[in-house]
Amino acid sequence: MNVVDIITKQKNGETLTRDEISFMVEGFTAGTIPDYQMSAFLMAVVLKGLSKENTVALTEIMRDSGDVMDLSGIEGIKVDKHSTGGVGDKTTLIVAPIAAAAGVPIAKMSGRGLGFTGGTVDKMESIPGFRTSIENDEFIRAVNERGIAVIGQTGNLAPADKKIYALRDVTGTTESLALITSSIMSKKLAAGSDAIVLDVKCGTGAFMKTIPEAEELARSMVEIGKASGKKTIAIISDMNQPLGNAVGNALEVQEAIDVLKGCGPEDVTELSINLAGAMIVAGGLAGNAREETNDAVLKGKEIAKEMLDSGKALDKFREFVVGQGGDPEIADNYELMAQPAHSIEVKSPVKGFVTGVDALRIGLASQHTGAGREKKEDSVDMSAGIVLNKKIGDSVEKGELLFTAYANDKEKLKKGAEEALAAFEFGKIEVTKPSLIKRVIE
Amino acid sequence: MNVVDIITKQKNGETLTRDEISFMVEGFTAGTIPDYQMSAFLMAVVLKGLSKENTVALTEIMRDSGDVMDLSGIEGIKVDKHSTGGVGDKTTLIVAPIAAAAGVPIAKMSGRGLGFTGGTVDKMESIPGFRTSIENDEFIRAVNERGIAVIGQTGNLAPADKKIYALRDVTGTTESLALITSSIMSKKLAAGSDAIVLDVKCGTGAFMKTIPEAEELARSMVEIGKASGKKTIAIISDMNQPLGNAVGNALEVQEAIDVLKGCGPEDVTELSINLAGAMIVAGGLAGNAREETNDAVLKGKEIAKEMLDSGKALDKFREFVVGQGGDPEIADNYELMAQPAHSIEVKSPVKGFVTGVDALRIGLASQHTGAGREKKEDSVDMSAGIVLNKKIGDSVEKGELLFTAYANDKEKLKKGAEEALAAFEFGKIEVTKPSLIKRVIE
Repeated sequence: MNVVDIITKQKNGETLTRDEISFMVEGFTAGTIPDYQMSAFLMAVVLKGLSKENTVALTEIMRDSGDVMDLSGIEGIKVDKHSTGGVGDKTTLIVAPIAAAAGVPIAKMSGRGLGFTGGTVDKMESIPGFRTSIENDEFIRAVNERGIAVIGQTGNLAPADKKIYALRDVTGTTESLALITSSIMSKKLAAGSDAIVLDVKCGTGAFMKTIPEAEELARSMVEIGKASGKKTIAIISDMNQPLGNAVGNALEVQEAIDVLKGCGPEDVTELSINLAGAMIVAGGLAGNAREETNDAVLKGKEIAKEMLDSGKALDKFREFVVGQGGDPEIADNYELMAQPAHSIEVKSPVKGFVTGVDALRIGLASQHTGAGREKKEDSVDMSAGIVLNKKIGDSVEKGELLFTAYANDKEKLKKGAEEALAAFEFGKIEVTKPSLIKRVIE
Repeated sequence: MNVVDIITKQKNGETLTRDEISFMVEGFTAGTIPDYQMSAFLMAVVLKGLSKENTVALTEIMRDSGDVMDLSGIEGIKVDKHSTGGVGDKTTLIVAPIAAAAGVPIAKMSGRGLGFTGGTVDKMESIPGFRTSIENDEFIRAVNERGIAVIGQTGNLAPADKKIYALRDVTGTTESLALITSSIMSKKLAAGSDAIVLDVKCGTGAFMKTIPEAEELARSMVEIGKASGKKTIAIISDMNQPLGNAVGNALEVQEAIDVLKGCGPEDVTELSINLAGAMIVAGGLAGNAREETNDAVLKGKEIAKEMLDSGKALDKFREFVVGQGGDPEIADNYELMAQPAHSIEVKSPVKGFVTGVDALRIGLASQHTGAGREKKEDSVDMSAGIVLNKKIGDSVEKGELLFTAYANDKEKLKKGAEEALAAFEFGKIEVTKPSLIKRVIE
């Protein structure tokens, strides 16, 4: 097989054989195919697309480039959940206990944050004593005992994707449906669950700005998941502003607990019920899901809501925290979590309506306060972040509280607060709040 | 300026600024932009094309990446000639003396052969005593004195093109009108002449297989030449079989002299008159060329023919050879040139008509006899090569001579003869000879 022939075939928009894709991906990962050939190939993929067949092959070959988790020691249909990345997205901390309370085994690996998006692992580590690093057999045992465990990524999952992703980032080849799909799905497939629920973010603060774009990505991922034998459901949700009010590690954990108590922000609650409902459906616990889709979705959401209302989800959360060495008392006393030395309340400079809260800038503001990392090695201020008091569609008086910024470092606090204020847009006419759930694709 | 932004712009088919192209090309040549970014950019150029404006910029930036020859010390309109590469193409040795005899100053740099195409420099060096390596001031003086000098490439012409070309070769990005045009024209512009005549080969033995493809390339090169202020004329000529009968260094020189004497093969003579005519037109010596194009072309060809018929072109050739230290007696006694130790006459295995003589295979056959190089360092057997006795459209009896192969090495002779025979195709029905001149573009 010849690299230039394969590149030329892709350049001409022809369908490749699985062996040809394998030759490219494995050769590149092993270092026998140089990056300049891979980047030419990737640009041809961006501009000519990949057939469904080739996207499935690419995804599975990247999945098989490293460890594939074996979760067969866990009984039941294991359901994973993935978000394409947003600001203020603490839903894993909510949907995992809800779905686990409903009987869905949750054996989940999460990542750390980099840049303006937070990572679930960082958020969990803001709980005193909480361990996110657990050996594989303990992990399996934990899920079998308590029905839930969430840990940091272990093993070497999809190293081919990691290497290709790094190259795409510096060669203008990020925007490709096939490449985005295969990148996300290769890691999800390697994580070993039986079914996958995807939260595809859509809006100014997401990679996919419009509903048609988000829908295309959602359909592509669902297709590839199914083709690889996994039940896959995607929910397209709004990211025109941060999700919920809190952005920052301990702040988001507190908001997640608020939701589990039934007193959290409406949007986070709504999205969590939808996602957890989809996980319950995917886990086969909402009746005959395949036959009567709509009924199943409604049933799944009903069960999810019941788990919240009955307090069973909150109980499961406490059990989960205890199980991983954390202090369950934090659920009743937030002051047991890291407290910031400083805070600043920022008031509205005008009277009118909030017409925009730029999610990316709020994410950046939170990072500036110390809640996020710029580089992988950076440490994180667990107590830092932003709590919004106003969001899109809210009316505001001059001098009324817009948000509070928290940090241990005064300089960082100032920088974060300035950035957060710049994220706000005001107008004289009331605007509608963005609808949260845009589509469900399965 | 940011590399990924520039790649992304090109990927989206937007027109770049001259500064952006400059940033890419200069950065890549200097080594500050890595090859993986350049290859992604090149693939985007292949698939999205380049505007005329951007192609001009790319050509001029590559031209300026190295030495640009200063021929201002030579009086008159200097005309260069370039062929896109063919087998048996000895026209430079004919058209240079014709045009010089007509008063066009010829200050030409030629290359060495690699692979199956021969190089003019190698051919000239088969003349005993001939020097192709001359200092710049002697070169200028020679042209002013005799009106003609042809030397090997000096200086560091268009190093950016050299580096980009090497990358294109291994990344499936060779087939791009804009990249081919800018590669050829950057070197021609750096060579310093005032006008350029292009011989664009078309057919099975050329890069451009069809007339529309060749015409597109010719138009693109003429456009870029003109945009950079050079009179540029392109002739599209046949390369469905080798040009003339002789392929090999000394053998081609002899055939060139035959043409200058008026007894050479018809096709080489016809192409030479057309190319030399175009050079005379481009040199402003065929009347008001811009106003009455057809008349000028006819006038140019008439002058070229007159130079041949009167023997003035042959005299100029002798003067040219003497001027560069060669023995002019070779024009009258071919035995003064390198003689091969062995030859073999290959007869037709069938009775019928020659329907094909694959130019690439004849080129390869000639290389096998020792007339060409596989690697840059290889030495060349000046006497080796192939002389065809039959070409497309000729009738042939069983046992009639098809070609003679020459070489100093018996093994190589055998290998070359076998390859040359394999280049022939026979049929029972007479086919038309391919027409030689397909189009003139200016």
